[in-house]
Amino acid sequence: MGDPTGPSRRPPRLLPRRHRRPPAGSAPGTIQVAEGAPPPRITLIQYDAEHLEERVLESVGQIPAQAPEGGMLWLNVDGLGDARVIEAIGERFNLHPLALADVVHVDQRAKTELYDQHLFLVLRMLHDEAHVRHEQLSLFLGKGFVLTFQERAGDCFGMVRERLRKTHGRIRRRGADYLAYALLDAVIDQYFHPLEAFGDRLDALEAEVLKQPTVAVVHQLHALKRELLVVRRAVWPVREAVNVLLRDESGEWISEGVRPYLRDCYDHSVQAMDMVETFRELAASQMELYLSTVSQRTNETMKVLTMFASIFIPLTFIAGVYGMNFDPDVSPWNMPELRWFLGYPAALLFMAAVTLGILWLFRRRGWFG
Amino acid sequence: MGDPTGPSRRPPRLLPRRHRRPPAGSAPGTIQVAEGAPPPRITLIQYDAEHLEERVLESVGQIPAQAPEGGMLWLNVDGLGDARVIEAIGERFNLHPLALADVVHVDQRAKTELYDQHLFLVLRMLHDEAHVRHEQLSLFLGKGFVLTFQERAGDCFGMVRERLRKTHGRIRRRGADYLAYALLDAVIDQYFHPLEAFGDRLDALEAEVLKQPTVAVVHQLHALKRELLVVRRAVWPVREAVNVLLRDESGEWISEGVRPYLRDCYDHSVQAMDMVETFRELAASQMELYLSTVSQRTNETMKVLTMFASIFIPLTFIAGVYGMNFDPDVSPWNMPELRWFLGYPAALLFMAAVTLGILWLFRRRGWFG
Amino acid sequence: MGDPTGPSRRPPRLLPRRHRRPPAGSAPGTIQVAEGAPPPRITLIQYDAEHLEERVLESVGQIPAQAPEGGMLWLNVDGLGDARVIEAIGERFNLHPLALADVVHVDQRAKTELYDQHLFLVLRMLHDEAHVRHEQLSLFLGKGFVLTFQERAGDCFGMVRERLRKTHGRIRRRGADYLAYALLDAVIDQYFHPLEAFGDRLDALEAEVLKQPTVAVVHQLHALKRELLVVRRAVWPVREAVNVLLRDESGEWISEGVRPYLRDCYDHSVQAMDMVETFRELAASQMELYLSTVSQRTNETMKVLTMFASIFIPLTFIAGVYGMNFDPDVSPWNMPELRWFLGYPAALLFMAAVTLGILWLFRRRGWFG
Amino acid sequence: MGDPTGPSRRPPRLLPRRHRRPPAGSAPGTIQVAEGAPPPRITLIQYDAEHLEERVLESVGQIPAQAPEGGMLWLNVDGLGDARVIEAIGERFNLHPLALADVVHVDQRAKTELYDQHLFLVLRMLHDEAHVRHEQLSLFLGKGFVLTFQERAGDCFGMVRERLRKTHGRIRRRGADYLAYALLDAVIDQYFHPLEAFGDRLDALEAEVLKQPTVAVVHQLHALKRELLVVRRAVWPVREAVNVLLRDESGEWISEGVRPYLRDCYDHSVQAMDMVETFRELAASQMELYLSTVSQRTNETMKVLTMFASIFIPLTFIAGVYGMNFDPDVSPWNMPELRWFLGYPAALLFMAAVTLGILWLFRRRGWFG
Amino acid sequence: MGDPTGPSRRPPRLLPRRHRRPPAGSAPGTIQVAEGAPPPRITLIQYDAEHLEERVLESVGQIPAQAPEGGMLWLNVDGLGDARVIEAIGERFNLHPLALADVVHVDQRAKTELYDQHLFLVLRMLHDEAHVRHEQLSLFLGKGFVLTFQERAGDCFGMVRERLRKTHGRIRRRGADYLAYALLDAVIDQYFHPLEAFGDRLDALEAEVLKQPTVAVVHQLHALKRELLVVRRAVWPVREAVNVLLRDESGEWISEGVRPYLRDCYDHSVQAMDMVETFRELAASQMELYLSTVSQRTNETMKVLTMFASIFIPLTFIAGVYGMNFDPDVSPWNMPELRWFLGYPAALLFMAAVTLGILWLFRRRGWFG
Repeated sequence: MGDPTGPSRRPPRLLPRRHRRPPAGSAPGTIQVAEGAPPPRITLIQYDAEHLEERVLESVGQIPAQAPEGGMLWLNVDGLGDARVIEAIGERFNLHPLALADVVHVDQRAKTELYDQHLFLVLRMLHDEAHVRHEQLSLFLGKGFVLTFQERAGDCFGMVRERLRKTHGRIRRRGADYLAYALLDAVIDQYFHPLEAFGDRLDALEAEVLKQPTVAVVHQLHALKRELLVVRRAVWPVREAVNVLLRDESGEWISEGVRPYLRDCYDHSVQAMDMVETFRELAASQMELYLSTVSQRTNETMKVLTMFASIFIPLTFIAGVYGMNFDPDVSPWNMPELRWFLGYPAALLFMAAVTLGILWLFRRRGWFG
Repeated sequence: MGDPTGPSRRPPRLLPRRHRRPPAGSAPGTIQVAEGAPPPRITLIQYDAEHLEERVLESVGQIPAQAPEGGMLWLNVDGLGDARVIEAIGERFNLHPLALADVVHVDQRAKTELYDQHLFLVLRMLHDEAHVRHEQLSLFLGKGFVLTFQERAGDCFGMVRERLRKTHGRIRRRGADYLAYALLDAVIDQYFHPLEAFGDRLDALEAEVLKQPTVAVVHQLHALKRELLVVRRAVWPVREAVNVLLRDESGEWISEGVRPYLRDCYDHSVQAMDMVETFRELAASQMELYLSTVSQRTNETMKVLTMFASIFIPLTFIAGVYGMNFDPDVSPWNMPELRWFLGYPAALLFMAAVTLGILWLFRRRGWFG
Repeated sequence: MGDPTGPSRRPPRLLPRRHRRPPAGSAPGTIQVAEGAPPPRITLIQYDAEHLEERVLESVGQIPAQAPEGGMLWLNVDGLGDARVIEAIGERFNLHPLALADVVHVDQRAKTELYDQHLFLVLRMLHDEAHVRHEQLSLFLGKGFVLTFQERAGDCFGMVRERLRKTHGRIRRRGADYLAYALLDAVIDQYFHPLEAFGDRLDALEAEVLKQPTVAVVHQLHALKRELLVVRRAVWPVREAVNVLLRDESGEWISEGVRPYLRDCYDHSVQAMDMVETFRELAASQMELYLSTVSQRTNETMKVLTMFASIFIPLTFIAGVYGMNFDPDVSPWNMPELRWFLGYPAALLFMAAVTLGILWLFRRRGWFG
Repeated sequence: MGDPTGPSRRPPRLLPRRHRRPPAGSAPGTIQVAEGAPPPRITLIQYDAEHLEERVLESVGQIPAQAPEGGMLWLNVDGLGDARVIEAIGERFNLHPLALADVVHVDQRAKTELYDQHLFLVLRMLHDEAHVRHEQLSLFLGKGFVLTFQERAGDCFGMVRERLRKTHGRIRRRGADYLAYALLDAVIDQYFHPLEAFGDRLDALEAEVLKQPTVAVVHQLHALKRELLVVRRAVWPVREAVNVLLRDESGEWISEGVRPYLRDCYDHSVQAMDMVETFRELAASQMELYLSTVSQRTNETMKVLTMFASIFIPLTFIAGVYGMNFDPDVSPWNMPELRWFLGYPAALLFMAAVTLGILWLFRRRGWFG
Repeated sequence: MGDPTGPSRRPPRLLPRRHRRPPAGSAPGTIQVAEGAPPPRITLIQYDAEHLEERVLESVGQIPAQAPEGGMLWLNVDGLGDARVIEAIGERFNLHPLALADVVHVDQRAKTELYDQHLFLVLRMLHDEAHVRHEQLSLFLGKGFVLTFQERAGDCFGMVRERLRKTHGRIRRRGADYLAYALLDAVIDQYFHPLEAFGDRLDALEAEVLKQPTVAVVHQLHALKRELLVVRRAVWPVREAVNVLLRDESGEWISEGVRPYLRDCYDHSVQAMDMVETFRELAASQMELYLSTVSQRTNETMKVLTMFASIFIPLTFIAGVYGMNFDPDVSPWNMPELRWFLGYPAALLFMAAVTLGILWLFRRRGWFG
């Protein structure tokens, strides 16, 4: 099941390491990009039912200020390494400075914020690699536009882009809220891949625990529990974030027709939470199983030792007695047995009797059950 | 109580294994049937207070588009292996695509969804075999019709069909909501069979733990806890699903007269949850009992070893001393005891005294209590 | 503190054993009496402020259809072994079939159901015997009548009957709701007897754990926890059941004057729950105490063994060396010590020095603290 | 840290021992005084802004039926040993029989009951002695009067009485609700004394656990947890009781000006709960610390034993081999080593080599880390 | 990882030690300064969009009674050692006596109180030193003024003062509510520094537990859990305190424009809570990891001992037998083996066979896996 000193022992950090929090008391809405964050790469998709235009923008200046008449605009930014780009986008689309600050502070919990100008959604994306990797997705939904910011390139939106490119797709005839839903749905669906991998790892670990409980298994179980904590922090608040969307009855941002789709998202987030909790219980139960198995093995090892020791220590003593050098010549009391005709066989018989007595004792205690 | 390597050690997987989740970001409402799912077998029951017609449909085309005038229609589909059949039924009865997608994604939690055209209910059926097996039941309740989809043939609706066949049964004179209730009730009632089996297994395991705690018992306890997790995932959300039905005051889907029956279902679901929780507590308590028993046994094994060792090791040492070969001839200081007249009896007496001293020490520590 | 194999080890089953659940999907309201249930014995008390009549009814036909003008009627049925009797009573008093079915399915949780014709209350009575025994009480409260159904003879209503028999008692001048309250109050008050017995048992067990922790104590602790689960299942839902009564503001079933009395019942049920939870915590704490005591004892047993072994095993080795038979005659290197003038005393001194060294080592580790 | 068999091991009983509960089903409002309860001692304080009169009443007859015109009356009863006195006071002030019954049944949880004639408050007072002692305080607040009932003499109201005696005190110019608040506040403030003592005890125990974990420490920890359960049962319901006062918007019993003071009480009760919970967590953490320390010590004791045994047992065996009496005279195969010129030094060297080998083995396992 | 007896073992006390609680029953609003509290140092900042004045006040008399026309006033008090100063400020600004009492009783939980004249906010500041140190901050928000009271000099408001000093800063053009928000925000942001330190400590401890679990690690883990309790008590109630601010819809104290900023604070407090809980889970999981590792190590130590003992004890016995001094001269039965030609080699072979047998036994038990 692997090497306890290998890489599998180091689950991801719970907090992103290079996160540069501005000093306490700084003005709110300060855009301070994380050290080492990759430079932004901006891709634009503009579409309506008839047309679709997709291109990579070279500079901030190319960003259109608003969606084309009757059409939709999706601007995706991969990489948060340039504060000026993010601020420029913020100005173009009139984004709230607090929301913009949350975009670059990439350790937010999933949440929905209703601002006057737009709706702001934070989600954590999970990438299903050797270990669970997580990344913040910030999504702005406004009149005719959706903006998404990701920490780095690589996402789970490939299928959404595919659907957009098809002229006849439903997604082309729906509004920005439907696009936002489609992205949200893709993020939540993506959760199930690492979750299913957890299920498989738990099954494998269980087989190990049942067969041969070693310290390596416990280390892996601990690593898995740690990763589950990461997943849980990503998954739990999603339900509430979707619920805020659903509770907004005004219909300003979410149209009536998109509502059932969001309810579907809500169900999925509940299902994901449910799986996380089930896996946590399972991991706890396996740890318990491990501990009780080790206890039992210690007990059995003890029994083996005790039986060996309890049988042979008295025998060795008897042999020791007859190995004493008292001189039978000086006194009839000094070990006369040594000169009896049947002294040796008698001693052996005595030892056998002692052995049987002790075995009988153990049998009565049920040690052979 | 069985072989720890036998089949009883492998409880069912928590997730159905062959479930083919569409890739993240796919269009919602995609009907992607699970690999290896059996082909659908459609049975139709049409009835009113006077007549009842029951038959197996050969093709999708035979499905009536709606219930007969003043009558009810129950269409049951066993097997979800053909997307076209499911889509055809969806079109006939105007089912919401999201609901239809949930039908084939067979790892839903129990839930109630109110759509404009129909009510959609998901439940998990438990089958009481060697191990708990679970299966998704999807139920649509519309004006005059009930549609049910099951993963495979074999259900707990035999008694409901019997009641339908009797001309004078109350169920024949009631609406589709009553039929839906009857099916829901049958599913919930079915939960109690595996639950009662759990009770018996826990009783048997407890007797084992009290008598002879072995690793096999812990493995079985763990397997039982795992199965309880499966049952719990099935049972817990049912209460909420029924509650949604009860909270719907509009009376659009559930008529006033069926309400008390649903309250009865609600009670049963609470009772099932209560049993699950009680069994979980009991299993936890038995694990604790096991651990403390093993600890105590280890302690007692230790005592036996310590007593044997503590008594005989000093004695063996004394015997060893008198087995040394110092030459009494060269010096009066060299083991003169060996030539004393009562040397041997004195040595034996000394050993006896040491033994008594050690026994007295143990008695004072209360090791014989 | 008793024999672990004795009767005290078997707490009551969590589920009544002979409960015959009708097959899943049966028509609701099926009256299927439990196998082996005793035949019903019906007692009738009719009273108003002036008169009281009390008698045992021979047959169902003798049951009056309603309470006498301006008076009250209390019909008590002990034993649920005859479905026809129960159905006959149901018809006479126009009881809802679902409520009637709950009467014979004697594993209901405590609950209050408001039907159009009557109020239906289920409670679990606890009998304070060697082990807690529980029994279902079903109570119907209608206009001028109270019906109670018990599983078997023997209840806690003796004092209520006494109060009814006294002409001047308040209970004689009040309505059926007050009688229902009095019965409810008696059932809840009865809970405190086994609860107080639990307190005494826990005190006794604690003394045992502190004095001499044996496996028998753990078995008793486990049995107690199991019984607490039974009591908890009986007690917890009572609060909610009483609360439903209190929340019913219509005043249809509970008059304003009886309300403060029900609040008192509510308080008592909260108090009982509080005691159950406290006892559960106490039992958990004692189990923990037991485990840590056993751990500590194992550690101390180990220390004794280690000290004995660590001191005598090296000594025995030294003695063994001088018991070797190398021939000093063939070589001056072969154990010349054996022929030294002070060889033996020197060897003994050496052994003493080794002993002191080891003892000093243990002292430094703090093993004598 | 004390003697495990000493008095510190017996925390207070969770239930008052001599509590005589009336038999189940008794008429509600029965005043049945507890056996051995001290006789009542009644003190009366009558005051308005100008005057204050304070005296001990000799008999029930001296109790004024109501407060003086424009003034306040505080009647305090220490000792509940005389049912007639309590009933007489009940009649004078028109107290509800159920409330009066709660006064003598001294195991009530803290609660607030709104009756038509008066407000009824139950609190548990904690006395900070060697062990936490608790006592029920019953308080009636009516128009112009406050009645308090205590189980025995001795309370925390000394400062309140002092404040009343000062002519210029705010308390003299306020109504009965302010007096009730002042008493409630004194009771809650008193909670912090035992709580702070718990903090000190936990600190001392922690030092013990870190230094030398003995069974005595565990016993004290268990005793502390038991006492915390007592305190918790007293403190938890207070918050709700104060909350009921605050929620009563009618202003009938609590005037608007007293409300902020009650909010202060509410804060204090939350703070007390918070401390109780923190201490419970701390105690749990210390128990865990204890267990892991003992486990570690057992492991280290084992290591010492294993090292001693593993080194010397093989050596002893080698010495034993050369102590065998095979006769080198009869055969060149029979232990020729015994007659080698360097037989003895060779044997010693061999033993040294074995020892080094075993030590190297242990080093490789990291046992000297 | 450090010395278990060193300073790192003593986390901060949960309760401030020199807190002088007034005796139970004292008049509410009593200002009783804590013993040893430092004398107050009052700093005043008055500002509007154009001007800013900042100075240290020498005496209470210099405190302006209100903010300048159209401007804001921030009075900060470091040190609560002089009751007269605090009372004087209370009179000047018309502060409620209960709030003023809470200022000096420095163990309040975070809370928001709405008084008629002002809003009162209590927060706990965390200082990120070797160990977490906490301090109470009391904040009054009134018309045009903010008052802050700290236990001692040194705070996290440096950046806020910087922003105030800049003429063009947003903070200069906003009201007192924005200043209060800025201070609140600084306090909450400060929480993340110790929290991130906890993350690092947990990572370091985990590495230790995985590598070499010693008692020192457990002591550090316990210390960390204790500190987490301190942080948790500080952080948890903040969310509710901010929520009270957000729920106040009147807009009397918090203007509409400041609301989104407070929501941001709310998010941060939730995030801090979330981190605390995650760290608590992680610490619990590490303790479990530690325990299971120690159990496993004990088991392995046992195995080593058992193998050594089980192999050599029988061998030693055999050697002992042939060391017995039965005299082969007196009887052909007395150890004739000693004189066999191949006696010695045969004995050695027999020993080798026994060893192999025992090793085979262990192999079959899987002890070499």
